[in-house]
Amino acid sequence: MRSKRSKVLHEVGRLPLVRHVGRAALQAGADRLALIVGRDGDEVAAAVRRDSETVAVFEQRERLGTGHAVLAAREAIEQGFDDIVVLFGDTPLLTANTIERARAELSKGADVCVIGFRPADPTGYGRLVETDGELVAIREEKDASESERLIGFCNAGIMAFAGRDALDLLNAIGNENAKGEYYLTDIVEIARGRGRRVVAIEAPVAETIGVNNRSELAEVEALWQAFARERMMISGVTLIDPGTVFFAYDTELGEDVTVEPNVWFGPGVSVGEGAVIHAFCHLEGARIGPDASIGPFARLRPGTDLAETAKVGNFCEVKNASVARGAKINHLSYIGDANVGAEANIGAGTITCNYDGALKHLTEIGEKAFIGSNSALVAPVRIGREAYVGSGSVVTEDVPDEALALARGRQVNKDGRGKAIAEKNRAAKAAKKATKSDR
Amino acid sequence: MRSKRSKVLHEVGRLPLVRHVGRAALQAGADRLALIVGRDGDEVAAAVRRDSETVAVFEQRERLGTGHAVLAAREAIEQGFDDIVVLFGDTPLLTANTIERARAELSKGADVCVIGFRPADPTGYGRLVETDGELVAIREEKDASESERLIGFCNAGIMAFAGRDALDLLNAIGNENAKGEYYLTDIVEIARGRGRRVVAIEAPVAETIGVNNRSELAEVEALWQAFARERMMISGVTLIDPGTVFFAYDTELGEDVTVEPNVWFGPGVSVGEGAVIHAFCHLEGARIGPDASIGPFARLRPGTDLAETAKVGNFCEVKNASVARGAKINHLSYIGDANVGAEANIGAGTITCNYDGALKHLTEIGEKAFIGSNSALVAPVRIGREAYVGSGSVVTEDVPDEALALARGRQVNKDGRGKAIAEKNRAAKAAKKATKSDR
Amino acid sequence: MRSKRSKVLHEVGRLPLVRHVGRAALQAGADRLALIVGRDGDEVAAAVRRDSETVAVFEQRERLGTGHAVLAAREAIEQGFDDIVVLFGDTPLLTANTIERARAELSKGADVCVIGFRPADPTGYGRLVETDGELVAIREEKDASESERLIGFCNAGIMAFAGRDALDLLNAIGNENAKGEYYLTDIVEIARGRGRRVVAIEAPVAETIGVNNRSELAEVEALWQAFARERMMISGVTLIDPGTVFFAYDTELGEDVTVEPNVWFGPGVSVGEGAVIHAFCHLEGARIGPDASIGPFARLRPGTDLAETAKVGNFCEVKNASVARGAKINHLSYIGDANVGAEANIGAGTITCNYDGALKHLTEIGEKAFIGSNSALVAPVRIGREAYVGSGSVVTEDVPDEALALARGRQVNKDGRGKAIAEKNRAAKAAKKATKSDR
Repeated sequence: MRSKRSKVLHEVGRLPLVRHVGRAALQAGADRLALIVGRDGDEVAAAVRRDSETVAVFEQRERLGTGHAVLAAREAIEQGFDDIVVLFGDTPLLTANTIERARAELSKGADVCVIGFRPADPTGYGRLVETDGELVAIREEKDASESERLIGFCNAGIMAFAGRDALDLLNAIGNENAKGEYYLTDIVEIARGRGRRVVAIEAPVAETIGVNNRSELAEVEALWQAFARERMMISGVTLIDPGTVFFAYDTELGEDVTVEPNVWFGPGVSVGEGAVIHAFCHLEGARIGPDASIGPFARLRPGTDLAETAKVGNFCEVKNASVARGAKINHLSYIGDANVGAEANIGAGTITCNYDGALKHLTEIGEKAFIGSNSALVAPVRIGREAYVGSGSVVTEDVPDEALALARGRQVNKDGRGKAIAEKNRAAKAAKKATKSDR
Repeated sequence: MRSKRSKVLHEVGRLPLVRHVGRAALQAGADRLALIVGRDGDEVAAAVRRDSETVAVFEQRERLGTGHAVLAAREAIEQGFDDIVVLFGDTPLLTANTIERARAELSKGADVCVIGFRPADPTGYGRLVETDGELVAIREEKDASESERLIGFCNAGIMAFAGRDALDLLNAIGNENAKGEYYLTDIVEIARGRGRRVVAIEAPVAETIGVNNRSELAEVEALWQAFARERMMISGVTLIDPGTVFFAYDTELGEDVTVEPNVWFGPGVSVGEGAVIHAFCHLEGARIGPDASIGPFARLRPGTDLAETAKVGNFCEVKNASVARGAKINHLSYIGDANVGAEANIGAGTITCNYDGALKHLTEIGEKAFIGSNSALVAPVRIGREAYVGSGSVVTEDVPDEALALARGRQVNKDGRGKAIAEKNRAAKAAKKATKSDR
Repeated sequence: MRSKRSKVLHEVGRLPLVRHVGRAALQAGADRLALIVGRDGDEVAAAVRRDSETVAVFEQRERLGTGHAVLAAREAIEQGFDDIVVLFGDTPLLTANTIERARAELSKGADVCVIGFRPADPTGYGRLVETDGELVAIREEKDASESERLIGFCNAGIMAFAGRDALDLLNAIGNENAKGEYYLTDIVEIARGRGRRVVAIEAPVAETIGVNNRSELAEVEALWQAFARERMMISGVTLIDPGTVFFAYDTELGEDVTVEPNVWFGPGVSVGEGAVIHAFCHLEGARIGPDASIGPFARLRPGTDLAETAKVGNFCEVKNASVARGAKINHLSYIGDANVGAEANIGAGTITCNYDGALKHLTEIGEKAFIGSNSALVAPVRIGREAYVGSGSVVTEDVPDEALALARGRQVNKDGRGKAIAEKNRAAKAAKKATKSDR
C-alpha cells in the first residue's frame, strides 16, 4: 500500500476494511472475534472493538504462513467453539450470508468448508478439486495437472472448521515446503487423511476480492458503492447520477428522497422522507428531517440536527446545531454551536462567532427571529423570539424577545470623493503599466 | 418506483418522462394529444399541457390491459384522425424520427405499424413474427415455438394505426385469456384476419427502454445525458470530462464554450460563445453572455442575466439580477434582485440585503462603481455611477454618482489587551483539559 | 473542432496537445524541434517554446499532403541530424519510450522506421505489409488485396528516418495521385527501391490516437487521466473515487496523501506527505505542505504556499499568500495577497480587502494572531503577533503586537420594535398576496 497505516485500517464506505470483515462475522452469528495482528495491532484492535466488546487480540510475531497465523490464536481456539471461521482483514466485501452458508455446511456434517470463487481467468489461483461433492484438494497452479488447470473453481483462502478437532488439524500442518511456511490450505488433505468430510461452497467473485494496493482499494470501493447505490434506488431514492454519490456504511435515506449529482455522505447521516439533497453537498454526522432541502454547495458537519422542512442553502456550513422546523439558512452562512428556532430566517452571510480563541460558545436564536444579512452573532448570545437584527450588525449582547437590534456604523456619503478615488486609481494603474513597459 | 409521485412525472434531463414522450409526438407532427392517466391525472395533464394546449385527458379507472387503456380515449378516437400512435409515458427516449417512420409506413399503405427492437437477449420479450415483409403475429415467449424463440426482433409495445378503422379494430380486442385483460397486441392478428396490412419497423434499443424503478430511471438518465454530451461536443463545446456535466432538456451552449468537470445545468440556461464555465457550478434559469467566466463554485439562479465578459467567481450566488458587460463579482458574494452596471467591481463578501422579512427589494449599482469588500447593501438602495463604497460598510441610504460612502465603526486599538486575552484563553483551555482528565 | 483556436492548442491534462508531443520528443533525446504550422503559428510556437528554447518554426502555406508538410522544414533538415522523427501535434499520448524504440531501430541499421498499431478493427487504416522483419509497403484499404486486408497491423503515420539521406528520400516523393498530394507514406517504397532497410514497430493503441473533434479530445483526456490516476495510486496516494479526480501534467502528490472525490488539480500543484484533500476542491499553482488539510469546498489559486499542518476549510479562497505552520482558515474566507503567521486563527467570514480599485496590497498577520469572525482587513495592513481582532471589525490601521483591535458599531436594542416589524411584514405579505389574487 506504500502507507504508514496498516492495510486493514484503510477504508471502504468510510469504514476500515477490518471492520467490514468483523461486522460480517458478527452478523453471521459469531460469539467471539479473535484478531490476529502484525503491525499497528493496538489501532486495529481498537477499530474492531467499536463493533464488539469481545475481541481477543493475538500478535503474529513472525510471518510463517497462514497456518502459523491462525495458531497465534491458539489460546482462543482452545476455549472450544462449535465452529471457527478464518477470515482475512483485507477482503471487505465478504457478506454474512456467505459465512452463514459455510457454517450451514458444518451443521450438515462437514468438518471443513472452504470458500471458493470462479474468476474470469483462473490462471494463478489454487484450484478446488472436487469429487462426489467433496473437496479432495486445493491444488496450486504449479502442481496442477493439465486437466486440473481447466478447473475454474478457485480457492479464496477463507475457511470454516468444526470446532471439535480444529486444534488437532491445525497442529498437524507442517512446513516441509520450499519456503518453510505453514499453509492453512494443507488442512484439506490432513482432514481427508483422517476421514473427515471436506466441502467447498462458491461465493460471488466480488466478495472474495482482497486489497493489496490503493488501486485495488479503489476497485473495491467502487463495487461497494455500486451495491449501496442500487440498494438505495430500489428502496425508493432518486439518484440522478448514481455514480457521483458516495455513501458511508451507515447512511440512511427515506423514501422519495432525491439526491442530485456529486454528494458525499460521510458517516452518521440520516435523511427523512421527501427531502432533497441538491448537487455538491458534503454531509457528515447529520440528521436531516423530512422534506428538508439541502444545498447546493452545503456542508453539514457532525452534530447537525435539522427538523422537517428546514433549509440550508448554498455556501453554508452548519455544525453542532439544531435547526427547527421551517427555519432557513439560505446563503453563505456559518452556523456552529447554535439552536435555531422554528421559522427563523438567517440572512445571507450570517456568522455565529462561536470561538473566542479558547472555548466554543452557544448562540440561541428564537422562533421566527429575523437575522439581517452579513451579521455577526458573538456567542454566547441569545436572540429572542421574533427579534429582528438589522443587516450588518455585530451582536455582542442578548437581544430580548420581539426587540430590534442594530449594531453597525452610521453611513456618511462624501460627494465627489468616489470619482476622485477613481481618477487616482486610473492614474495609479497607468503608472504601474508604465513601470512595467519600462522594464 | 416506491414513490408518492406518478412514475411519468419523474424526470430525465430535468423534464418529466411524459413530457419527453409528448414532445416527441408533437415534433413528429401530432395534431392532438390524448392522455390516458391513472393516478395523479391532474398533475400529469398539467405537465403535458406545458408543451401543447390541445391535450385531452382520459382516466382509465380500472386496469384491464393496454387495449382497454387505449379505449379509455374512445371519444378522442371517434373524432377521426389520419392516424393514431399509441405511446407509453414511461419510454422517454423514443424519438420523433421513429414515430415519423411508423407514420410513413401508414402513408405507404399499412394499416398497423408495430415498433420493435433487437435487445442483446430477447428472452422474455414478445417476438415479432414476420413473413414477406409483413408482421403476422406478436408471439409471447411462453407461446413461441422453438424456431420463433430464435427471433431477435421484439415487441416494444408502441404502435401506430391508420385512423380509418382504428376504432373497429380496438373494439374487436377480447379478453378471453388467463388474466381477463384486453391486450393491444391482439390487434395484429385481428387486423390480419380482416385482410389488413400489418408491418413492423425497428427502433434503436435505447429508444424503447421503459422505466419501472429508480435504477432504470438512472440508466435512462445516463443514456439521455450521453446523447446530449456527444451532441454538445460535436457542435464545438469542450467538455473536459463529459461524464460529469449534466444537461437539461433545453440547455444551449455556443461554440468554443469550455465546461470544466462537475457542472450542473438546470432548466433554462444559455451560454454565449467563448464563455468558460469552471468546475463545480450549479446553473439554472440563467443567460450567460459571450466570453463570460463563471465559477469555480458559482451558483446562478433563475433570472440571472450576465452580459458579455461578465465574471462571477467562487462561492458567489446570483439570482434575479442583470450584470452588465465586464462587471466582476469574484468572491463570496450574494447578489439578488439587483442591476449591476458595466465594469462595476463587487468586492469579496458583498451581500445585497434584498429581503426585509416581507418583500424583496432592488439594489442598483451604477457603471464603474466600486463596492468595497464585506459590504452589506440594504435594499432598496442605489449606488451611483463611479461611486465608491468603503470596505465593511453597511449601506442603508443611496450613494450619489461619484460619491464615497463609508458606513462602519471606527477602529480602536488597545495595547496589550490581545496578549491578555491570549493568556486568559490559554488558562481556559488548560482548565478545560484538566476538567476532562479529571473525569 | 469547430473552434477559433488551433486544434493542437486544445488541452489534455491542462497542457496543449502540441506540448505533450514536443515534451515526449525532448524526453526521447531530441536536440532540436522543428515545428511545422498552419494557422495560429505564433501561438503554437510560443506554446512549444515553453519547453525548449531551440524550436525552429516553419509555415506550411498550402496544404499539399504530409510529405509536403515535412519539406516545409527543409532548411532544418539540411542542417543534418543523426535522425529525424516526424510526429503529429494532435497525438498527445505518444510516449518518449515509443520514440526511443523507433530511434533504436535506426541505430541498429534501419533507414526508416514506421510506427504502427493494432486497432480492434483495422478497417479503413493503411496496413503495414511486412516480409522477413522488413516493412515492404503501407497499403491503403482501397488498394489492399484480400489477404492484405486481413493484416491487423496499421499505420499510425509516425515515422523516423536516418538523417544521412532523409532529404533525398523526401525529395523523391511525388504527387501523381488522385488528389495531387505528396504522401509521406510513399517513402517506404522509395527507400526500399533504393535498397534501404525499412522496419515497423508497434505502439500501444492509446499512444497513436489522434484528436479530430472535441469528443475525441474528451476520450484522450479520459485515457490520460486514467494513466495518471493509476500512477498516483500505485505510488501510495489514496483516491477514494479515482474517476472524479482530475490531474494536471505536473501534479505532484506525496505518499499517504488522501484525495476525496471531485477534486480538480490545475497546473502547478504539489502536495506533501499525509495531507488530506477533501471533496470538492479546486487547486491551482499551490504548494500544500505535509499533513495539511484542505476543503471540502476550498479553492487555492496561484501563489498559495501552505506550510505543514495548515488548514484551509470550506468556502475559502486563498491566492498569492503564504500560510505558516498550523494556521487555520476554516470557513468562508478570502485570503489574498497575505502572509499568515504560524498558528494564527482566521475566523469565519474574514476578508482581506486587497484591492483598492487600482492596486493589490499586502495583509500581514502575525504568529498566533486571532482574527474574529466576519472581519474585513483593509490592506495594506499589519496585524501583530498575538494580536486579537474583535469579530465584525473593519481593520483599516495596523494592530500592534499583542494588542486588541475593535472596529465596529455599538449595539442598540429597541424593545418591541422587532415585533412591530414582524407585524408590518405580515401585513405587507398579506397585502401582496391580496394584490396577486385580485389579478
